[in-house]
Amino acid sequence: MRMPANWFPGLTLVLVLALAWHPAPGAEDTAHKPLVTADVLAASKPSDWRPLDPQNTLYLELAGGRVVIELAPRFAPRHIENIRTLVRERYFDGVPIVRVQDDFVVQWNDPEGSRPLRSAEHAVPAEFMSAARGIPFTLLPDPDTYAPIVGFSDDFPTGRDPKTGRAWLVHCYGMVGAGRGNDVDSGNGAELYVVIGQAPRQLDRNITLVGRVVQGMELLSALPRGAGDLGFYAKAEQRVPITSVRLAAELPAAERLPLEVLRTDTPTFADLVESRRNRRDEWYKVPAGRIDVCNVPLPVRMRPGTASAH
Amino acid sequence: MRMPANWFPGLTLVLVLALAWHPAPGAEDTAHKPLVTADVLAASKPSDWRPLDPQNTLYLELAGGRVVIELAPRFAPRHIENIRTLVRERYFDGVPIVRVQDDFVVQWNDPEGSRPLRSAEHAVPAEFMSAARGIPFTLLPDPDTYAPIVGFSDDFPTGRDPKTGRAWLVHCYGMVGAGRGNDVDSGNGAELYVVIGQAPRQLDRNITLVGRVVQGMELLSALPRGAGDLGFYAKAEQRVPITSVRLAAELPAAERLPLEVLRTDTPTFADLVESRRNRRDEWYKVPAGRIDVCNVPLPVRMRPGTASAH
Repeated sequence: MRMPANWFPGLTLVLVLALAWHPAPGAEDTAHKPLVTADVLAASKPSDWRPLDPQNTLYLELAGGRVVIELAPRFAPRHIENIRTLVRERYFDGVPIVRVQDDFVVQWNDPEGSRPLRSAEHAVPAEFMSAARGIPFTLLPDPDTYAPIVGFSDDFPTGRDPKTGRAWLVHCYGMVGAGRGNDVDSGNGAELYVVIGQAPRQLDRNITLVGRVVQGMELLSALPRGAGDLGFYAKAEQRVPITSVRLAAELPAAERLPLEVLRTDTPTFADLVESRRNRRDEWYKVPAGRIDVCNVPLPVRMRPGTASAH
Repeated sequence: MRMPANWFPGLTLVLVLALAWHPAPGAEDTAHKPLVTADVLAASKPSDWRPLDPQNTLYLELAGGRVVIELAPRFAPRHIENIRTLVRERYFDGVPIVRVQDDFVVQWNDPEGSRPLRSAEHAVPAEFMSAARGIPFTLLPDPDTYAPIVGFSDDFPTGRDPKTGRAWLVHCYGMVGAGRGNDVDSGNGAELYVVIGQAPRQLDRNITLVGRVVQGMELLSALPRGAGDLGFYAKAEQRVPITSVRLAAELPAAERLPLEVLRTDTPTFADLVESRRNRRDEWYKVPAGRIDVCNVPLPVRMRPGTASAH
């Protein structure tokens, strides 16, 4: 075990430095602020965590287990309303994963295109960008290759352009988007994809992102890669069936997973980011001093005191 | 099939713009320069491609197939010499993949640490950075979050700091590194890891990178994730055995794979980069105008006219 942790192992606090990322509002006693990721999370308060909204939570069931997706309705309200309709009308039950392209995406859709959309829209106008005004935003201070500024809104990674006043979700690992044809307004949420490699940021502002995987990512990322063009499975029998997709709100409350995400508008999150910009466990010798928006962990946990259903 | 290609499908050339990335030395007739990736590669000349050096090529055999790794001796000569010794003395034959941490690394090493190193060094001095002077370098013009400047050297992605005069390989998807303990000089190449997710650039300059996977990446990236701490397989029987590791030079010439990589010091590569910075196929509506060093494809092919052995 000679490689460092990418997450939070039992790390040792080596340096207690008051190198605040940016002044964390409400952070008291910076001299004793925990600066290793595991310590930051251990010191978090219940109010630092936000339960998932059952109306914005999808349970995608595979033979291997459950994938949980959190939807981002502020950025893609029309696509998400259509996805909710598709889910309620059981459009996705039995739809297969048809494409796994290494270092790019996992994608599912009706391969024959014969499944009726029923009361869902056939085409939803593009939701590539939103007006930034009024959207909460926690700035990440480091330069980004693709966007003028980056940070977090509603606990999703986002980019912004102060000149145009636009904001958009960005294509990090685990982000979920809605496929479209060449017409920008041709997507409808019936075809979805999940990023499984290096962030394909060239897709930003070209396609509608609708959310992110918050649990079960490894059930998608470890699927066999498709040998056909663009990573499509060459043979129909290689496709991976989705048993069902449900909105958490469709399940009785007792059957919903008590998942919580760390709020990105908290001092705890600012500490977390700083703990990742400058690693302080003994293994690291040269702290990066910077972090890419897609390298910032967005922690998810089961609400403490609940039995793990997974 | 409503999502774009991440690689080179049968794209249509929509726009023929003379938006050169930076003036490509020797590029004639920019008005007709192909600017979609597939066209750039189709127009490449034999001299744009470099055959792999058999002394710098590893064949790692798994039950599922062969993984080919190209070593980067300019950046890690001592680690690579030790790896060659380990390979020649069959150290790796039967060593298992012990760790697959989602969005981070696949790692193999002797889990018991009992396998003799024989004539290999037990510890090799750190090779985290090199003197930049004298190392060929093709600059990428876009800003990078982690390094002052980035680009390509010997067809590997690299970072540089003009102030310190240092150069280093960077942790992109598919890069291969040598694990170490907390002591910077404690690595020896007997434990190796491959990046399988978002580029963990915080590792740059903290650990010795030795090369990259040039074929068979999907055999590693699609492995089941480990459920133990740090993605280690919780049970010994989940480990994935490596049948053998050989230097290509150990095989008769006729049995070596005739792989070639695109040279990054060519006008063709400059055109390729530009075709990725500004996608011109019809699907894209907002060209990124930028590219991350880890999003630049580093094409590999079988030498034309050879039968595919894979």
